[in-house]
Amino acid sequence: MTSTKPKISFAGLGAMGGGMATNLVKQGFEVTGYDVFHPLLDRFVESGGKPSYTPKEAAASADFMISMVANAAQTSSLLFEGDDAAVHGLGKGKTLILCSTISPAFVSEIRKRLDEEFKRSDIKLLDCPVSGGTLRAGDGELSIFSSGPDEDLQEAKQVLQAMSTNLYNMGAIGNGAKAKTIHQLLAAINIATTAEVLGLAATIGLNTQSVFDAIQDSEGASFMFGNRGPHALTNDWHPYSALGIILKDAMIVTDTARKEQFPVPLACTAECTYLQGAQAGMLKDDDAKIVQLYLPPSQGDLVYQMTKADAMMTASYQISKDTIINLLCGIHLAASIEAMAFGKKLGVDGNLMYDIISKAAGSSGMFTKHIPSMLEKDQWKLSDCPDVEEVGRKLSEAVEKCRKINYPCPMAAAALQQFHFAKLAGKVIGNQGRGR
Amino acid sequence: MTSTKPKISFAGLGAMGGGMATNLVKQGFEVTGYDVFHPLLDRFVESGGKPSYTPKEAAASADFMISMVANAAQTSSLLFEGDDAAVHGLGKGKTLILCSTISPAFVSEIRKRLDEEFKRSDIKLLDCPVSGGTLRAGDGELSIFSSGPDEDLQEAKQVLQAMSTNLYNMGAIGNGAKAKTIHQLLAAINIATTAEVLGLAATIGLNTQSVFDAIQDSEGASFMFGNRGPHALTNDWHPYSALGIILKDAMIVTDTARKEQFPVPLACTAECTYLQGAQAGMLKDDDAKIVQLYLPPSQGDLVYQMTKADAMMTASYQISKDTIINLLCGIHLAASIEAMAFGKKLGVDGNLMYDIISKAAGSSGMFTKHIPSMLEKDQWKLSDCPDVEEVGRKLSEAVEKCRKINYPCPMAAAALQQFHFAKLAGKVIGNQGRGR
Repeated sequence: MTSTKPKISFAGLGAMGGGMATNLVKQGFEVTGYDVFHPLLDRFVESGGKPSYTPKEAAASADFMISMVANAAQTSSLLFEGDDAAVHGLGKGKTLILCSTISPAFVSEIRKRLDEEFKRSDIKLLDCPVSGGTLRAGDGELSIFSSGPDEDLQEAKQVLQAMSTNLYNMGAIGNGAKAKTIHQLLAAINIATTAEVLGLAATIGLNTQSVFDAIQDSEGASFMFGNRGPHALTNDWHPYSALGIILKDAMIVTDTARKEQFPVPLACTAECTYLQGAQAGMLKDDDAKIVQLYLPPSQGDLVYQMTKADAMMTASYQISKDTIINLLCGIHLAASIEAMAFGKKLGVDGNLMYDIISKAAGSSGMFTKHIPSMLEKDQWKLSDCPDVEEVGRKLSEAVEKCRKINYPCPMAAAALQQFHFAKLAGKVIGNQGRGR
Repeated sequence: MTSTKPKISFAGLGAMGGGMATNLVKQGFEVTGYDVFHPLLDRFVESGGKPSYTPKEAAASADFMISMVANAAQTSSLLFEGDDAAVHGLGKGKTLILCSTISPAFVSEIRKRLDEEFKRSDIKLLDCPVSGGTLRAGDGELSIFSSGPDEDLQEAKQVLQAMSTNLYNMGAIGNGAKAKTIHQLLAAINIATTAEVLGLAATIGLNTQSVFDAIQDSEGASFMFGNRGPHALTNDWHPYSALGIILKDAMIVTDTARKEQFPVPLACTAECTYLQGAQAGMLKDDDAKIVQLYLPPSQGDLVYQMTKADAMMTASYQISKDTIINLLCGIHLAASIEAMAFGKKLGVDGNLMYDIISKAAGSSGMFTKHIPSMLEKDQWKLSDCPDVEEVGRKLSEAVEKCRKINYPCPMAAAALQQFHFAKLAGKVIGNQGRGR
C-alpha cells in the first residue's frame, strides 16, 4: 500500500512543521525529518519519522522535500549554504515545496538561484504557504495557498491534500506567497487592533471579559479577536504564536508593499506596534502580550483591571462596548479594503482572495459583510463602500472619545485617516462631474 | 506720555504670559495682571505690574483684556465661570484679545457665548495666537497671527505691535487660530521627528553630537531639530516647553481635522507618540524627552550612547548621517504638503501661511525649498512636487534600513505611505490622459 506513496523529506520540525510532518507519517507516508535542533528531531522519530542529520542527507531520499523553517534566512541556509545544503542532495526532477511564510520576492530569488547559481532547473519548485495554526497542522486540516506550474502542482496534489482541507490553486509560482502576504496583512492588523481595544476597555475600568463577550457577538468580531483576546484576558503569554512571528510577517507585508510603492498605512501602523513590543522585550512571548503597551505600568494588566471597574468614572468617559465595537468596525473595514486593494495590485484574484480570507485567520465581521458586494467591480476604494459614511462617522466619534482620555489608539487613528481620504476622493470625483 | 496708552489687563502670567505682560509694562503700558497661581502674580507685581484677584476685577479696569491662559478650559473659566468671571467686569465696547493656542471652533464658541448667553455683543473679540517662545515673548518680538474685524484690529494695533516683530493680519475672526493650528501641525510633527531620528542615531551607536551637527548643515534641518535636539543630547528635561503643551496643540490639530473630515496622517502619528510619552509619565517634562520612547530601557540615553559607539557594528547597518538626513527630508516634505493642504482646506491664504511658517518654529529646510514653487498653483498634493520621486526613493531606502534593525520609525513609515499614495495618484492621472 505505502509503496504507491511518494517519499517525503520534511525540514523544520517546530510547532507547525512538527505537526505537519507527523500528520504525514500518520497518513502512511515515509517521511524523513530534519531540524537543526535535535530534540525536535528526536521527538519526530518517536512519532514514527526517519531522522536525517544534514539538509543534503534529508533531500537525497525525497521525491518531495517540504520546507517549513522559520523564515527566509533559514530557508537560504537549508537550501543553499555549504556542501551539505539540500540543493546538493535533491535528485533530478524532484520537487521542493516551500511552506514557510516568505515574501513573494524571495520565492523568485530561490527559483533564480536554483536555475542560475546551481544550474538546477530540473528541480520543481512549488510555493505553498499554509494557514491554520498548530492544531490544524497536526490534523492535516490546514489551508494551503499552492502555486507553481500546473503539472507540478498536480504531481504534488496527493501530498498537499494530505496536509489540508482547503487547498487553493493560486496559479503561477509566487502567487501563494502573495496570497499569504495579503492574509497576513489582515492578521497583523487584527492582532494589533485586539490589543488596542482591550487595552482601552481595561484603561477605563470596563469589565474586560464582558466587553470581550459582547464584541464576539457583534459586527466588530474578528478571528484574531476571538483567538488572542482570551490570552490577554488571562495574562497567558505562552507563545501560542510568538510576537517575533507576526512581526516577521508584518515586515514581509510592508517590504512587499514598499517594493511595489503601494500604500498600506494600517499594516505599517501595526508593524510599528510590534516593533515597540519587540523593544519592550516581548519577542518570544505570545503576540497578545502587546496589550501591555497600552496600559500604564502602574495600572497592571487586564486581569487586575477586571476586578477594579469604577462604574462612575467609566460612565463619565461615555465609552461603552458600543464605542469599542465602532472602533473595531472602522479599523476592520479600512483594513479589509487595504487588503483587497493590495491583493489586486499584486495580481491576486479578488474572488479567490475573498474565499481564502473569509475562511481563515484574517477574517472579520466587516470583511465578510462588506467585501462581497464590492467584488464585482473589483475596485478597492473605501469611498466605494456604501456604508463608508456611517462607519466613518462612528469611528470618528469613538476616536474623539479615546482622545478625551488621552488613550493612544494608533490603529483607530490610522484607519480614520483613510475615511478622511475617502471623503476627499468622493468630493473630487463629484466636482469633476464623474460622480458614481 | 503714558496717558495716551490704553489700559491693559493680562490674564495668565506663566512662562509665555508673564514675559508678554512684563514686556508691556516695560513699554509703558499700565498693566493689571491676573493669575490663579499667586506666586506668579507676586512676581509680576515686582516687575511693575498691578495685581488683581478675580477675573472680573482684572477686566474692570481694562481697555484691552489679553488672555494667555494655558488652554480652552482655563479660557472658559476665566471668561464665563461664576459671578467673578471676566465677562461681568469688562466695560462696554472694550476688547478681549485671545492669545492662547486654542482651536478655531473654540474661538467661534466664545463669540457665540458672548453674544447669546451673556448678551455682550458690545465686547470686541480678537483672536491673536502667538509664536516665538518665552525669550521672544519677554522681548516683545513674537509673531502674532491676528484676526478679527478690521477696525477692531486697527484699534488694538498699538498693543499688538508692542508684543511683536511679525504682526500678521489673517482676516476674519478664527483665522488666527487656524493659522496657529497649521503651524502647530508642523511643530508637532517636527518635534516627534527629531526624537525619532536622534533615537536612531543613538541606537546604532553613531556619535549623536556629530550627527546633530551634520543635520544642522543639511536639507534635513528644521527649527525644531535645532531647538529640541540639544535638550535630548544633554538629557536636559527642564520643561522649556512641556510635553503637555505640544500634546494639547497636536490634539487641536487632529480635532480640527476630524471636524473637517480632513486627513492629517503625519500629525496623527505624532500625536500618538505624544500620547505614549504621556502614558510614560513625561507630561511635565520637556517634550524632547520622548526620545526615550525610541531607546530600549537597557540602552540608557543619548549621552550614554555617545561614549559607546561601535564603529564596526554601525558600519554593518549601513545607516549613516545621510540615511538620517533622507529620513528627515522625506518626513518634512510630506509634512509640509500636509500643512499647506490643511491650510487651504481651512481657508487660510497660502502665501501668508508660507510667510508665517518659514519665519517660525514650524519651518524646515524642505519647507522653504519646495513650497515656494508650488504656491502659484495652490494645489497641495505630494505628487505635484517635482522632487517627489527622488525624495520618496531615498526615504524608502532609509525606512528599509531602519526595518532591518527593527527600529520603530512611525513618522518615517507614515510619511512613506504618503509617497506611495502620491505614486498611485500620479498613475491615475497619467492613465486618464490628464498628465501634467
